[in-house]
Amino acid sequence: MNRPALKTLSKVLIGSICAAMAIPASLKAESESKADILNVADYDVLPDGGDCTPALRKALEKCRESGATTLLFPEGRYDFHPDLAEEIYLYISNNDEGLKRVVFPLVGFENLKIDGQGSEFVFHGFISPFLVEDSSNITLTNFSVDFDRPFHSEAIIIGWDEDGMEVEIPQQFPYEVRNGLLTFTSGEKETGPLTTVSKGTVYGSGHMLEFDTEKRETAYMARDYYFKTTASYPVKKLDGRKVLLRIPNLVGTPGNTLVFGPNHRKHPGFVLTRSSDITFESVTIHHAGGMGILGQLTHNISINNCKVTPSNGRMLSTTADATHFVNCTGYIKLTNNLFENQKDDATNIHGIYAQVTRKTAPNQILIQLKHRQQHGFDLLRPGTEVEFVTGKSLISYGRGIVKEFNRINKEYMQVTLEEEAPAELVPGDAIATIRDYPEVTIANNIIRNNRARGMLLNCRGKTVVENNTFHTPGAAILFEGDAFFWFEQGGVTDCVIRNNIFENCLFGVWGKAIIDVKAGIHERKEESRYNRNIRIEDNTFRVFDDTPLLNVYCVDGLTWKNNTVEKTDAYSPTPRKFDAFNVTYSDNVSIDTKNPY
Amino acid sequence: MNRPALKTLSKVLIGSICAAMAIPASLKAESESKADILNVADYDVLPDGGDCTPALRKALEKCRESGATTLLFPEGRYDFHPDLAEEIYLYISNNDEGLKRVVFPLVGFENLKIDGQGSEFVFHGFISPFLVEDSSNITLTNFSVDFDRPFHSEAIIIGWDEDGMEVEIPQQFPYEVRNGLLTFTSGEKETGPLTTVSKGTVYGSGHMLEFDTEKRETAYMARDYYFKTTASYPVKKLDGRKVLLRIPNLVGTPGNTLVFGPNHRKHPGFVLTRSSDITFESVTIHHAGGMGILGQLTHNISINNCKVTPSNGRMLSTTADATHFVNCTGYIKLTNNLFENQKDDATNIHGIYAQVTRKTAPNQILIQLKHRQQHGFDLLRPGTEVEFVTGKSLISYGRGIVKEFNRINKEYMQVTLEEEAPAELVPGDAIATIRDYPEVTIANNIIRNNRARGMLLNCRGKTVVENNTFHTPGAAILFEGDAFFWFEQGGVTDCVIRNNIFENCLFGVWGKAIIDVKAGIHERKEESRYNRNIRIEDNTFRVFDDTPLLNVYCVDGLTWKNNTVEKTDAYSPTPRKFDAFNVTYSDNVSIDTKNPY
Repeated sequence: MNRPALKTLSKVLIGSICAAMAIPASLKAESESKADILNVADYDVLPDGGDCTPALRKALEKCRESGATTLLFPEGRYDFHPDLAEEIYLYISNNDEGLKRVVFPLVGFENLKIDGQGSEFVFHGFISPFLVEDSSNITLTNFSVDFDRPFHSEAIIIGWDEDGMEVEIPQQFPYEVRNGLLTFTSGEKETGPLTTVSKGTVYGSGHMLEFDTEKRETAYMARDYYFKTTASYPVKKLDGRKVLLRIPNLVGTPGNTLVFGPNHRKHPGFVLTRSSDITFESVTIHHAGGMGILGQLTHNISINNCKVTPSNGRMLSTTADATHFVNCTGYIKLTNNLFENQKDDATNIHGIYAQVTRKTAPNQILIQLKHRQQHGFDLLRPGTEVEFVTGKSLISYGRGIVKEFNRINKEYMQVTLEEEAPAELVPGDAIATIRDYPEVTIANNIIRNNRARGMLLNCRGKTVVENNTFHTPGAAILFEGDAFFWFEQGGVTDCVIRNNIFENCLFGVWGKAIIDVKAGIHERKEESRYNRNIRIEDNTFRVFDDTPLLNVYCVDGLTWKNNTVEKTDAYSPTPRKFDAFNVTYSDNVSIDTKNPY
Repeated sequence: MNRPALKTLSKVLIGSICAAMAIPASLKAESESKADILNVADYDVLPDGGDCTPALRKALEKCRESGATTLLFPEGRYDFHPDLAEEIYLYISNNDEGLKRVVFPLVGFENLKIDGQGSEFVFHGFISPFLVEDSSNITLTNFSVDFDRPFHSEAIIIGWDEDGMEVEIPQQFPYEVRNGLLTFTSGEKETGPLTTVSKGTVYGSGHMLEFDTEKRETAYMARDYYFKTTASYPVKKLDGRKVLLRIPNLVGTPGNTLVFGPNHRKHPGFVLTRSSDITFESVTIHHAGGMGILGQLTHNISINNCKVTPSNGRMLSTTADATHFVNCTGYIKLTNNLFENQKDDATNIHGIYAQVTRKTAPNQILIQLKHRQQHGFDLLRPGTEVEFVTGKSLISYGRGIVKEFNRINKEYMQVTLEEEAPAELVPGDAIATIRDYPEVTIANNIIRNNRARGMLLNCRGKTVVENNTFHTPGAAILFEGDAFFWFEQGGVTDCVIRNNIFENCLFGVWGKAIIDVKAGIHERKEESRYNRNIRIEDNTFRVFDDTPLLNVYCVDGLTWKNNTVEKTDAYSPTPRKFDAFNVTYSDNVSIDTKNPY
């Protein structure tokens, strides 16, 4: 990914320093000597309420120079502010690109463990906690990540009519009302006059969703309210911390919590880019301004015994997916984790489709990264193998090797192939990379109370999902992928879902069935088969009504075997449009039971 | 200024290519041979309504390779879209930094004339027309710059009460009303569903100002309405293209035009950075998303026979200053130009103060660029001479030489000096550079109908302002400078203002007098003298009431001689707080006349 020049030059330098200092893994197996451990306290990184950012920068530099393999934090609360943080322009798939202040810029590191020994890392303002880039064998362990002022805000619903909704905003979410607009703020007093260049610190919101305050989950059948890029909402100021949202057709249950999602995903908790062998062990993410952990182009990622969970009585943890992986390779292991109250799915593992704009020569095509949050993605290298895919029917009809490419800007690339592009290629088709698709293990996790779905399985490597408990308002497991809107490459080839408990899922609006096997196929449905070889065995489905269990679309090879269905009275029944099993445009589907309802 | 790595590397390469190809000025004097002229038509840059951006990129590359000294456009209308434009991260003083799509990226060029031969250059969307960086001897001539959809919007005032104002929005300013919010748009239809990542193309606004529709100038005594970073305004949709702005306390005259200023300055028309000998001749700027021409760290700039003026019946030209110059050197010549209807001053020529955060060693200080729109400014080099200035009283109390500096991020720098910093230095003081302050010539220009002031004179080089006609709602000429809010280094040392006509100025709220000599001095007024040696001679002041002619504060040396005052009835008189001449905390001030009123 691009970044300011000075950064990159230093990165190259750093790279070689590290290479020179890298200690062979064989030696590292032995117990670490004192010299290998760098205690941050020795560099004035102190849990005293002050800004630890500048001292940490020095400690990390020292880590590089000394080749220390462990950065140790004495247990305590460490505060990090953006003022003196390193600045890097980052492209972060499915989050927002931009020039970020990064507190832990782990760029070009090898063999480093960051051990918080139970510490809390508290971040202030618009700041990015962790970047791991062009690094290998990095372990993050025994600490929590939180923000003192979260990027989202919350309010308690008092009442509503067709013209608007009255809410009360708790103390921990600062706001102001000016010129009839509600703006969430940092709570710090602005100085100086308001001018044509005034900005101030605005916690802009572009989304609202009702949560059940008692159950601490999305409200029964609650729908998203989306607003086009806005910072503020029209309101009438009422007494105390009450305002009347002057927005028609908002509905909600008095006493429930209205969560105002941010209008950005600028500050995910952990960004992993072009790295390898990254391990998360006993890390808690209370909040992030975007996804919790975003891995892109990274080889071997393990997340074990971690938590994504809110702090301070907040309803929300991360403001987007808990974890998300794009064009990764090797393995992805999610084991023994808790993922709760994030404002989107627990995970999504997929690739990226770039759209073909046009053929510019027999062996040359102009391609575009269409999805705004894929811009700048480091998709191709000379030698990369790509597949050609029809845009509306997702049929992979050819392959090619990238000879060279010219990056026009973050959005467009001119690609030259070793040989001619397929004759049938037309504008609107897509390309994606053929690679060492990761082997996915998702085991012994609890996923609950978040917005939308549980796991999005869109990876062609062997995928095993077992011994997890799902309580999601949408589909617990979703298969998708399309080449015309999200541009996410998916299509499993070997997927097992076994011994999981699906606990009263689908009490919300996000999905057709508890296990929903979709695909963005709008043409040639009779012939296009996207997901393959899915086995669903020995799972328990607890359902509060005739909840659709399985939706299957354009699949070749699916087995439903020995699963148990139990009825509960957790929620009132809903009018369901679908049967327990819905199978369309699919081959070799075997279901060992009749409709249980 | 920083930029993505690939850019900079290529820039270095380009630099050497150019150096190799540079043709000595002596030879250039002779009439150009055909080979020196590159006709864009030969590179498929055609005035046919299509996107000329990619073909122009090729033409500019060819220009580099061939060392052509003239890029010639056959007369016509050329359209430029952002899709395939080059992308560069730009820090632009007094405008907004960011990753820009630049249509004319003149980086590392020497000896190039771009001759439009009367062509119109029309830009579409969020795009930056011209960047001249690390270049020398560049001439821009015979073309106009406009945007098909301006960054501002306009509406006609129908009526108002204390709760809001009813307006009607002309066809040429597309908008939509969703969820009670008015959002100005591109007018192009959005495709796909609205999601958590939707943005769409929003022409966000953060400022409103009333203009007199008949006189085509800011309405008599109209005030700015500022809104903190907002994209949209709360409204009630009425019939046709009418809306009720649900914002309390808006006032205006029915039939007048309410101008919605953009909430950004992302796309100034021309950005000049670290360049020399830049000439504008017969260039018309109809619109820009920020300032018209912004020069920074540039040596010798001439703008002659140019126009900043609106097109298509719009009330506004550029959405900020017509021209603006920061830390420039050599000369700045503004001659024979028309500057009208821009949303801020005609020019401002100043330096930058960085605030001292603290002394970190006897010869080391941490400094901060405080003003958001000065972030990333390339202020210092090893060897740069700096002055130390008291923050609230602007007293320059010492000097030093920069030995080295460490850029922490775009906002903070650690500066090491050759010798110890002055003992009296305290946090809150400022530093600015001592340099070859430009000689300023402002002659034979017409300045009228814009928001705010005419010329801001804050340059220590010899400054001559003569034979201009000013019709500005605020001060025609303003001297300022401060080290605690705008952080603009000023303080003239030799300034002549002669033979100008001041035509019914100060019919608005921006200034205390037609010539307003201010300074950001809040302490030690008795001793601090900021502006020096100002001569105001042989000018004509046409005034519609007892308009204050001159305000003088903390000045040493000012002469008012042989100026004529004539009364008009252009506007109804206003209650004035000040006398014709107001002189405070100043020395050596000579005024050759009594109060003319």
